[in-house]
Amino acid sequence: MATRSTQQRILQAALELFNAEGTAGVSASRIAERCGISKGNLQYHFPNKRDVIFALYHCAVDEMNAGWYRDHLAPTLEHMAAMFVRQLQLIVKYRFFYRELAGLLRQDPQLRQRYVANRERRLQVIEQFMQALALRGLMQLPADPRRLRSIVEVSWIFSENWVNYLEYQEREITLAAIQDGYHGILEILSPCLCEDPQHITEQACCAIERLVPPVELQQRMSA
Amino acid sequence: MATRSTQQRILQAALELFNAEGTAGVSASRIAERCGISKGNLQYHFPNKRDVIFALYHCAVDEMNAGWYRDHLAPTLEHMAAMFVRQLQLIVKYRFFYRELAGLLRQDPQLRQRYVANRERRLQVIEQFMQALALRGLMQLPADPRRLRSIVEVSWIFSENWVNYLEYQEREITLAAIQDGYHGILEILSPCLCEDPQHITEQACCAIERLVPPVELQQRMSA
Repeated sequence: MATRSTQQRILQAALELFNAEGTAGVSASRIAERCGISKGNLQYHFPNKRDVIFALYHCAVDEMNAGWYRDHLAPTLEHMAAMFVRQLQLIVKYRFFYRELAGLLRQDPQLRQRYVANRERRLQVIEQFMQALALRGLMQLPADPRRLRSIVEVSWIFSENWVNYLEYQEREITLAAIQDGYHGILEILSPCLCEDPQHITEQACCAIERLVPPVELQQRMSA
Repeated sequence: MATRSTQQRILQAALELFNAEGTAGVSASRIAERCGISKGNLQYHFPNKRDVIFALYHCAVDEMNAGWYRDHLAPTLEHMAAMFVRQLQLIVKYRFFYRELAGLLRQDPQLRQRYVANRERRLQVIEQFMQALALRGLMQLPADPRRLRSIVEVSWIFSENWVNYLEYQEREITLAAIQDGYHGILEILSPCLCEDPQHITEQACCAIERLVPPVELQQRMSA
């Protein structure tokens, strides 16, 4: 029990430091100091910084696995908005990872493999979710499966990079910024959506307003 | 003249090293060694690594400024495909910059400001290009200017990250990979395009085939 709780403390401290300063600027000593443990004790749990980063990505994947694979059982447009909000919250929580993604994956082939496997699994689940929306008459999907994959990939790349895009212009992750991002998703999906676009957009804005705890998000951003 | 050519050699050496190893792993000494000059001489031209990175982004902006602002004078779908290919080629050339974008912009507020100003200018020019396509009857734009901005932003985020997306799965920048990326762009724009989508897609594939020197791209990727 003590070991597990030490590991949790190390990961929490590392996450806060990485989010604030980036992985390159944070040494193992700094992480140990922040936890109030010795560098030797840190190395016992995580031999090097790469292991800490890998474990943190593992935590993110665990969060996805806890519930993100039942989406197709709730095929509504409101749930689709919730999926976007949920993804942005995860990206804000593991901010350093999505800021440094390309560099981190180049440094660590094992992390890259795990990331790609998880992404592929997520893309398939999102396709499955859209097919469930189509069965309910809420979407009309292209007959060509390559076109569906292309739409899902565009949505994925957009969602994964929306927080970075906001950050470049020093825009905070407010409710309005999340709604703007979701408008982007609705633009991508617009040819496939069956209901009136205006109505869908209004409903989505309301759904996101109910879902988002903006204060919490902003606290995380500035943490 | 000698000074200018030394600066060019430094920038070329730094670009090659940064693309191969990332900015964090490359010291000033390594750059100087690669150019065959002293570290003192390097520092005379660029007091620190941040200045080298800033100058390299300046080079990328210079490339954009040399011709990328006359696009609205050639409002054809073939030219739109050429704009995508051109952007991917620039991203491949300045590979490290687009890999490390979020981190680099956080480290250097001046670079961030310059990047954001250039991005805003580019977004406006892309809107202007689409308006020119609409005047020719090739596109039908949404009446709401915020929706047009949203479409342009989605296309921008997708284009800027497509090469990263390919790299994560170790996919090379082949002709097919560029064509797949452009299919993504056409999916985003599909509600606005007036011609038959199948015809547009086929024409785009042919246009990209004429434009892309895949061998050159691949060499740059593996450089």
